Amino acid sequence: MIGDSMKIYDWPTGPYPARVRIALAEKTLGSEVEFVSVDLWKGEHKTPAFLAKNYSGTLPVLELDDGTLIAECTAITEYLDALDGVPTLTGGSARDKGVIHMMSKRAEIELLDAVSVYFHHATPGLGPNVELYQNAEWGFRQRDKAIRGMQYFDGVLQDQPYVAGETFSMADITVIGGLIFAGLVDLPIPGDCTALLAWYARMQERPSVRNRVSMSEPTQKQ
Amino acid sequence: MIGDSMKIYDWPTGPYPARVRIALAEKTLGSEVEFVSVDLWKGEHKTPAFLAKNYSGTLPVLELDDGTLIAECTAITEYLDALDGVPTLTGGSARDKGVIHMMSKRAEIELLDAVSVYFHHATPGLGPNVELYQNAEWGFRQRDKAIRGMQYFDGVLQDQPYVAGETFSMADITVIGGLIFAGLVDLPIPGDCTALLAWYARMQERPSVRNRVSMSEPTQKQ
Repeated sequence: MIGDSMKIYDWPTGPYPARVRIALAEKTLGSEVEFVSVDLWKGEHKTPAFLAKNYSGTLPVLELDDGTLIAECTAITEYLDALDGVPTLTGGSARDKGVIHMMSKRAEIELLDAVSVYFHHATPGLGPNVELYQNAEWGFRQRDKAIRGMQYFDGVLQDQPYVAGETFSMADITVIGGLIFAGLVDLPIPGDCTALLAWYARMQERPSVRNRVSMSEPTQKQ
Repeated sequence: MIGDSMKIYDWPTGPYPARVRIALAEKTLGSEVEFVSVDLWKGEHKTPAFLAKNYSGTLPVLELDDGTLIAECTAITEYLDALDGVPTLTGGSARDKGVIHMMSKRAEIELLDAVSVYFHHATPGLGPNVELYQNAEWGFRQRDKAIRGMQYFDGVLQDQPYVAGETFSMADITVIGGLIFAGLVDLPIPGDCTALLAWYARMQERPSVRNRVSMSEPTQKQ
């Protein structure tokens, strides 16, 4: 085992949790983690007990054995990638760190977070007991932004094999998270985004992405 | 000079640009940068020429001499902090990297970005020529979220001297950015947030924060 023992609070089919599950598999750390299910559909991530772990009330959250809590996918990925001293997801050089963080943040703003706002504000989302405030107009704006985001990333992938350049990184994982979420809410990739579609098909060949669902099964039994 | 020559596109009084200017000063790299003004009030950050540099149309953007463009404050800070191999702002250990990234992202979500949405959606913002779409209801919700965010960070700072723990980091800079923006839009720190107020007074003693305005003067002349 590398470093502390780890517990991850997540929901196995959640798009944000998928980002950390893929990162864990890429770093071959999946077997070292205890997963604890927090039921999004029951709003367990908005209870006082969970908000004490993560003020923002989002999944996933990593808990170390000293009690340290790390929320936010980028932060958790930074932690996991630094454990073995060989950063394969967040960049080794200053330039690579900068470009990977930029592209990952851009994938959040322009795609993943936009799809999430659409889901929570312009569809029934997690249901009336969880979605206590909705702003449908804002949600639909974000849906349109997400589609434009797919077209942007299609353009990026016409020129280079991965989202942040020549190698697979956290930025690819964030776009994957966005497309997983888009699939769940029936926002398909436009057919003319051939580079994005081809890249996404290649991503499905990675064991970290392909085995994601089976990886989640033990959690669902908890 | 460390690394490549650097050009930064920003606007000297912008709260997001302030984050990178403070990081530059903390890393004593300020004199190695050429600043290029992009006039927010004229919407120069939304022109096709600028959108080609940063798809998201936000400031600041770092340009290296090989043409590499790095947008997003966290990404630029990662780049700057990695240049000398001694990360003082983004953490040395896996745990510190994780906690700093979490707290910085939380400061964006709960404070800085919330104030920004309030400004752009529920006030005249940058004026009718730039603010082509506004959703006032969403803006006011984000204003209230930002005030709650100040109260959250007040609680954090009751228990520890800096936002991410025992040392100054990128997370402090992000909260400073949030409070700079809040000051510009007349959202004062609530008087009962004594720990946040005391921390903010201490932050003003840091040369990187205190000299921020004078640091911007050469840029305004360009």
